[in-house]
Order: sequence, then structure tokens, then C-alpha cells
Amino acid sequence: MKISGPTLLLDEQKCKANISRMADKARKNELKFRPHFKTHQSRKVGAWFREAGVDAITVSSLGMAEYFAEDKWMEITVAFPANILQIDVINKLAGAIDLNLLVDNEEIVTLLAERLTHPVGIYIEIDTGGGRTGISYNSLEEIMSVAGAVDAVSKLRLKGFYTHAGHSYQSKSRTDIMQVFDQTIKNFTTVRNGVGNRLTVLEFCMGDTPTCSIATEFHGVDAISAGNFVFYDVMQTAIGSCGHENIAVAMACPVVSKNEITGEVCIYGGAVHFSKDHIEEDDHHLFGRVVDLGSQGWSAPLEGCYVKSLSQEHGIVKLSEEQFEKVKIGDVLGILPVHSCLTAEAMGYYLHLGGDYIDHYAQKNRDSPVS
Amino acid sequence: MKISGPTLLLDEQKCKANISRMADKARKNELKFRPHFKTHQSRKVGAWFREAGVDAITVSSLGMAEYFAEDKWMEITVAFPANILQIDVINKLAGAIDLNLLVDNEEIVTLLAERLTHPVGIYIEIDTGGGRTGISYNSLEEIMSVAGAVDAVSKLRLKGFYTHAGHSYQSKSRTDIMQVFDQTIKNFTTVRNGVGNRLTVLEFCMGDTPTCSIATEFHGVDAISAGNFVFYDVMQTAIGSCGHENIAVAMACPVVSKNEITGEVCIYGGAVHFSKDHIEEDDHHLFGRVVDLGSQGWSAPLEGCYVKSLSQEHGIVKLSEEQFEKVKIGDVLGILPVHSCLTAEAMGYYLHLGGDYIDHYAQKNRDSPVS
Repeated sequence: MKISGPTLLLDEQKCKANISRMADKARKNELKFRPHFKTHQSRKVGAWFREAGVDAITVSSLGMAEYFAEDKWMEITVAFPANILQIDVINKLAGAIDLNLLVDNEEIVTLLAERLTHPVGIYIEIDTGGGRTGISYNSLEEIMSVAGAVDAVSKLRLKGFYTHAGHSYQSKSRTDIMQVFDQTIKNFTTVRNGVGNRLTVLEFCMGDTPTCSIATEFHGVDAISAGNFVFYDVMQTAIGSCGHENIAVAMACPVVSKNEITGEVCIYGGAVHFSKDHIEEDDHHLFGRVVDLGSQGWSAPLEGCYVKSLSQEHGIVKLSEEQFEKVKIGDVLGILPVHSCLTAEAMGYYLHLGGDYIDHYAQKNRDSPVS
Repeated sequence: MKISGPTLLLDEQKCKANISRMADKARKNELKFRPHFKTHQSRKVGAWFREAGVDAITVSSLGMAEYFAEDKWMEITVAFPANILQIDVINKLAGAIDLNLLVDNEEIVTLLAERLTHPVGIYIEIDTGGGRTGISYNSLEEIMSVAGAVDAVSKLRLKGFYTHAGHSYQSKSRTDIMQVFDQTIKNFTTVRNGVGNRLTVLEFCMGDTPTCSIATEFHGVDAISAGNFVFYDVMQTAIGSCGHENIAVAMACPVVSKNEITGEVCIYGGAVHFSKDHIEEDDHHLFGRVVDLGSQGWSAPLEGCYVKSLSQEHGIVKLSEEQFEKVKIGDVLGILPVHSCLTAEAMGYYLHLGGDYIDHYAQKNRDSPVS
């Protein structure tokens, strides 16, 4: 196997360890584990979740739901506000599997009631502080009113409440993460205490990787649906969710140019491969950390080495003096991505360290990376 | 035609007008026009360039070169530092078309000399201020030395010098752009004056959309290879390269949630559809401008309406009070993208306003956007 272009490597061992760790935590806390598959979007990786006892999954689009339904996943939650314009896909899926949708307003309940041909499960999305979608946790009247609307439709079965504490991604430490977690639990519990006896027994599900990685006890929730933990990434190490040794994917990128004046090299690997998320570190943007690639995987991040900018196909990498001396044109650098979900989506496949390709829903056409 | 998911619309008229404008400018200035196809990556759009008299193109990867070579483009420049690890693709292409590569160091010249099986054209990449790749314009000795190395290899034909003034993207006005243009011309001319009589007659090619859009006279360059102008985008309007009326692509995105408290709506359209570039405006990030969609195209941007954040599949759109009142769940909003190259790559196809799909090299698997 010889890498010739930007290639997303997947370390099965690290990935399976990440899966077991979260599955064990769910089991220990008696939580239903509904892992979010939007990070890996892969049937092969999905099979590793099956081996860990998972039977219900979460995805972020109906297309992704179809992809996994074809692979015999029989309970799928689409953790995105139900899109009535895709009612045909919803009906097709609802006729084949246990499909769960998210709603956060009465309008969509009415639209679904008019057009559903098969029953679907419903989670009411609650905004516990993330501020993206969902009914605010303290708008109890509105929550009850949407719950009532759902109950009134025979094809809708109210399964519970769903929240994504996306603001945990703004954390800078484990302490920050725990603050978000505690607040999320508190706000979610406000809902549980406010909705009355009948609804209080329904499932309360939360799902962001930082809090699910750091918290050890989950009083007040019944299910978790984190996703990013399957691979983790540089952003998660910066937040404090994991260590670099837990990151299960790395890009392999050819070195195509060296700049003696700046001590930087250009790699073949840009925004179309990594996508474009970055973190701030010291006084600079950071789009990835550099590692040494070996036949069995990759090293810890190399000190003083990082991707400083990305344009469409170019990556500019700042190297330490020592590394700059070592690197030659035609070498292949390893790069830990900042946001593994978007990098995997941009690449559209994985290369297993053992040499096989692993599927991804996006299946993007690409230069053949291996010759 | 009924849009059901995020869809990239292409307005042929605007696109063809953008192509003619740049082709006319090249003709008037007696410049060889080598448009960069990395923005559209489409054979269909390529055909519109053919109609405008174009016979030589620029791309950003060897895979893209193969895609267009199969469509009978017989002269292709890969405007990316030559990647020796893809020598098999280089040789295959060089046997079939006039292939031009970029080099910015002697090491790659030596590697090509050893492994090329067919002749290729070479541009020496010059850094005239962009600071990404290329030999600095004032390192004349190094430029001459690389030119000498190229000349010594029988399979390499030195065609000229190439520069990308990528820092024009940092401009805030037409005045800024013209400053970058003047400096680029000045630095490029330093090279031309310094390389001696034999090399001075070679082609000097430059290629960024802001300067090529704004400059009217091109003394000191022989060829232009801009690309983004084919579609333009919100970033180019912010820089001053074009007006909103020139933007030839727009995303169509279903509205899936309304937040009465914030006056924001959630659209189905996130980082995996738009990619993640933004501009700064006033006190906020802006990931796209909102337009009204009609059967014949779209309106000017709606005042006070913009995409304020993107996560994987969610877009959060700030609307004016008036627009917020109007918009219903299940409506479709038009969004002018911030960076059309990356949005087109992320989408992997276009939908012509007339209803037909238009190809894109990336050909990404996706939810079917139209039902």
C-alpha cells in the first residue's frame, strides 16, 4: 500500500476502544445507548457498534437513515427537526423500520398528521441551553401543548424528549464541560418535573460527546446519543473530552513543497479534504496536528508542528526546525483532524490501517489515494 | 420540480455572462485565457467556456485533470505543486494531453526527471506576495537555478511563470484589490526583468478572481487563470470583486424550525452542504445571505437576513421581523453561499434552473434533493 494523495486512515483498535468505553458507561448507568452515526456514517463501523450490543441508532438526515435501514438497523432516530418536504422518504422509512423524528413546534405536528402513511415515534426537542433548535426548557406550556398535539395524532407515538447540549463544544476544560452537563441535567429535569405524571416516564435522551465523555453519573437522563466519540478529534482534545491517544482517524497527506524561509511545508490536503473547522491556540489558528505515520498507526502529536491554514487543496504546515530538516518532498505527513465528522464527510471513505477501504454514506468521487 | 432538501441551483444566464465578461477582458488585453475549473468542476459548465473560445484550462488536482481530459480538454495546467507520489497519473495524462505542472524547487525537478515517461510543460511558481507556495519573486538566483534544472531535463519544457495572488482575498475594497494587483504586477515584473533575455519571452500567468475582475489593463502578464468568477459568491461581493447580481449559484434550503424568541429559523443546510467559510459583518459571522426564490431565479439579498451559524446539517438563519412573519415551516429559503468553490465541492452537483442536473467532479452521494 502506497499513499499518493490525501487519505483518511482509520485505526480500528482505537475506534473499537472508544465504542466499548461509551457502551460500558451506558450499560453501567442503565442508559439506552443510541449512538449518533453522523460522525462515521459507515456500515462497517456500524457493525462494530452492533458487536458492542447496540440496536438503536441516531442519524442526522433521512438519507443517512435510508443508508443504515438498508443495512438492517431497525430503530433509527433522525436527530434533526422533521423536514416535511421529505415526507415521501419519511413514509418509506416508517413503513420499513421504527423511525423516530424530532419536532419542536405544533406546525410540523399538523403537517405530519396530514401526510403520514405509517406510524412514527416522536421526540420533542428541548433547548436546554444550546440555543440551536428545540423548545426552551422553561416554556413548559409550549412543551405540554406540543405533547398534546402529538398525542392527538394516531400515527404519532410520543417517545420522549431529546436535547443536544451543543454549547459543550465551547468548553475549554473538563470543568467547563461538567458545568454544561450539570446545567443540562438541571434544565432537562425542570422539564421532567413540569410535564406531569404521564410524560415523566417517557425517555429523556441527551447526546453530545463532551458531556457524555466526561460525566460518570447520569441521574435524570434515560438515554445518550453522542456520536463524535467514535473517532474523537483535535477539537475534543482541546475541549478536554479525550486525549490525543483516543483519536481514531488521521489524514495522510503528501508533502509537495518546502519553504526554507518560513520553515513551512505545503501538503496535498486542503479544505475539500479536511473541511474548514479550526481551533485557536496561542496566537494562531490550528487546522490539524502533525503526527508521524508508521505501518501500525501514528505517533503522538509532534511538538511545534501544526496545520496553520487550508485553501481548497493546499494545506500549509508549520514544522519545528527539527521536523523541517527531516521532511522531504514526496514524504507523507500524518495529520490529526480538528473536526473528524466534517473530515470524514469531506473524504467520503476511510482506509483501514490493514489496507481495506471502509464505506461512508457520502461516497464522494476522489483521486484514487493509494497506488 | 419540488425541492425537498438542500439543493445547489445554477443560473446559466448569470454564469455565461460571467464567463463572457472575463473572456472579453482577456481578448481585449491579448491575454491567453486559462480559466481555473476548480470552482465549477463541471463538464457542462466547461462546455460554456468552450463556446466562449477557451481551449486551455487550469485545475487544482490531477484527478480533476483526468475528469476534464476525458472530456477532450487537450491542454490542462494543474495549478498545484507537482505531487511526485501521483507520477502514474501524471504519466498517463502526459501521454494523452498537453499537461502543465507547477514546480517551486529543484528537488521535484529531479524526481520528475527520473520518473517521467512523457514530456510535460512546466511553470515555475512564483510567490509575489501570497505567501502560500512558490519561490519568492526576489529570490532571482533560486528562480534561475530551478529554470536551469528544468531546461536540463529533455522531458520538461519550461513554459513560463505562474503566480496566485491569494492575498487579494483579504481585500476589503476595490482599492485594496488594485493595490494587490499593482504589487503583484510589480513583483512579477521584477522576475521578468531579472531572468534574462531567453526566459523573459516565456508566459507570465496570474490567476485570482479579485484582481482579474477589477483590473482593466494587464501590462506585464501574458495569461490569466482566475476561476471563482464563474459563479462569484458573497465573499467576492464583500471584497469588491462583483455585485450580488453576478452570483450565479444559490442554495435552496427547507425551513424546518422557527424560534419565536430569537426571530431565527433553522434550515436544512449545514456545514456538509455549504462547507464552513464565513465573512465578518458588523458584529457577527455571516455564512450566507438570504434571497427569495422564484421560478426564474432569485431576488437581491433580503435586508437584515443572513445565515449566522452552521453545524453539520443545521443552518441557523437570522431573519428580519418582516421575513420571520412571512416564513413558514416547509418553505424553501434561497441562500447565496459565502464561498461557491467549497459549496459546489460539498454538494457534488448542480440543479439548473431549467430542472436538469449538472455534473460536478466530486459526484457526492446525497439525499435526493428534488421530488
